[in-house]
Amino acid sequence: MKVVLKNYVQGKVKESDMEVVATEAIVELKVPQGSKDAVLLKNLYLSCDPYMRGRMTQTNKRSYTSDFIPGQVITGFGVSKVVDSTHPNFKIGDLVWGTTGWEEYSLITNPNILFKINHPDLPLSYYTGLLGMSGFTAYVGFFEIASPKKGENVFVSAAAGAVGQLVGQFAKLMGCYVVGSAGSDEKVELLKSKFDFDDAFNYKKEPDLSLALKRCFPKGIDIYFENVGGAMLDAVLNNMRPHGRISACGMISQYNLLEPEGIRNIVKIITKRICMEGFIFTDHFASYRKFEEMTVQYIKEGKITYVEDSAEGLENAPSALIGLFEGKNIGKQVVVVSRE
Amino acid sequence: MKVVLKNYVQGKVKESDMEVVATEAIVELKVPQGSKDAVLLKNLYLSCDPYMRGRMTQTNKRSYTSDFIPGQVITGFGVSKVVDSTHPNFKIGDLVWGTTGWEEYSLITNPNILFKINHPDLPLSYYTGLLGMSGFTAYVGFFEIASPKKGENVFVSAAAGAVGQLVGQFAKLMGCYVVGSAGSDEKVELLKSKFDFDDAFNYKKEPDLSLALKRCFPKGIDIYFENVGGAMLDAVLNNMRPHGRISACGMISQYNLLEPEGIRNIVKIITKRICMEGFIFTDHFASYRKFEEMTVQYIKEGKITYVEDSAEGLENAPSALIGLFEGKNIGKQVVVVSRE
Repeated sequence: MKVVLKNYVQGKVKESDMEVVATEAIVELKVPQGSKDAVLLKNLYLSCDPYMRGRMTQTNKRSYTSDFIPGQVITGFGVSKVVDSTHPNFKIGDLVWGTTGWEEYSLITNPNILFKINHPDLPLSYYTGLLGMSGFTAYVGFFEIASPKKGENVFVSAAAGAVGQLVGQFAKLMGCYVVGSAGSDEKVELLKSKFDFDDAFNYKKEPDLSLALKRCFPKGIDIYFENVGGAMLDAVLNNMRPHGRISACGMISQYNLLEPEGIRNIVKIITKRICMEGFIFTDHFASYRKFEEMTVQYIKEGKITYVEDSAEGLENAPSALIGLFEGKNIGKQVVVVSRE
Repeated sequence: MKVVLKNYVQGKVKESDMEVVATEAIVELKVPQGSKDAVLLKNLYLSCDPYMRGRMTQTNKRSYTSDFIPGQVITGFGVSKVVDSTHPNFKIGDLVWGTTGWEEYSLITNPNILFKINHPDLPLSYYTGLLGMSGFTAYVGFFEIASPKKGENVFVSAAAGAVGQLVGQFAKLMGCYVVGSAGSDEKVELLKSKFDFDDAFNYKKEPDLSLALKRCFPKGIDIYFENVGGAMLDAVLNNMRPHGRISACGMISQYNLLEPEGIRNIVKIITKRICMEGFIFTDHFASYRKFEEMTVQYIKEGKITYVEDSAEGLENAPSALIGLFEGKNIGKQVVVVSRE
């Protein structure tokens, strides 16, 4: 079984833009003869991530990710077990995370996008999120891009998501004041009760986002961790403090729009001397081990809480991915292909 | 004679929003008795700058500049001569630049906004531009904010203006490829023939700004020195290279609009990992002397060309200021109050 993109997507992505198709049974779990430096993976957990929406539209542009190809299997981050290998760095039984296919078994001929799982004693699915791309993205964007200082005021949008929940907790652990926004009262409650945010609000219930931010940050925002874009970014620009920093990670509110919303308060970047910087975690791999050890330590000390939303089975992967854009998931959205 | 703001301005600023009013003759050129640490200035040259538009609208907000007050004299940068002083750092006859009034004589009770003119052998008006706020702004925005490297591709908007003409020359002097945009064929010609830009275009004659930039930068832009905002910023975001930097100095196209234009390509900040940073030269005074000595050296070696547009007399100051927003000035717009 595999999940393929049926056609390039314009506007809102629907379940019918993907197709779950049967595949031939694999007779022998072997890297094909003559394939040097390849590994055959059994996929265990797959990660659903907002950036995947961008890959469903044909851009023909060199971007940081290539477009998916209609009829071909969707790829993304996942946790897998090596079932065969002709690559010197990987041996049968190794647990890895990295880029794989939305299918039961994947042949990877470019294994430099795979990383060994250094802490297999923790739940393996953590490496699709907390200890994988989502967590590392939170780490890079917060510590390396936003240069936080103790006591600063931090705002996180999509705060109950895979990345946001960790940004908030990292910020709290370093002594910042942290407020998050989310799209349901249930998520807002989770932010306050479980993730230790100082405050949180449901953006769908706020008639004026700028006023909501003024209420939460009477003295303004020092750091904005940007996950949503659009109207929220405009409201944030109104409420930033001088020399504030915007760590731009994603703009999920815009990905399904044919025409993105215009940002009208961009001049505040000048008057308030704001630095807005986009980043992609793949540029920062040199820091991965540092991040991993720090985070594992926090997990073992019980200082970090992590919430996952699991969909069981590859056949449910398309709806799980689409749920991200509707805000259905609470926490990291994972697809369980196989538990071992 | 002095120039006062008549009323707060909404939308497009007009000459009639300012008023040139007669003042009583000053009987004695003395700092009033009891005024400690004050200087009385005779104003020689006044600077017309786009940021002044913002001060004409009531914001009641703490920004980097305060609002002007209707009925009171307009203030801005200028070059002046000290005619009396009770401040230990200033004596009669000193030549200074800094914040002064649009009037013949100004009493400054806060002289920490005045700076000695270290090179009075150069034309004094240079300290309203090339060696004053405009030049220092170009220096800070290019060298300190954009972190340029030799060989990089640099785009400057409003390139024939007071700041733009210097950014382009600084960039050429450090070995960058430099293209500028301006609003008339005459200015475009000036950029290419006089300011040593590699290429330039008249944005008013380009049906598609993004295509114009693609033509000038087939491999993309590394550094954008932003002076205009609006549609040009959107076109630039389309044409930036990965890890490009936007040094955000001003957005003159937006200052007269009641509602700013929306920027639709802001997501490129993420996909291309762009850093967009606003700055104001006053945050960087520690570098002023370094800038001044470097620039004076270039001037004396004939490596920097500087073009001024002079209006004669205070009575012509309002139209000179308004001309900035219509693109009338070629080079730095100065008002000559008195030549000595």
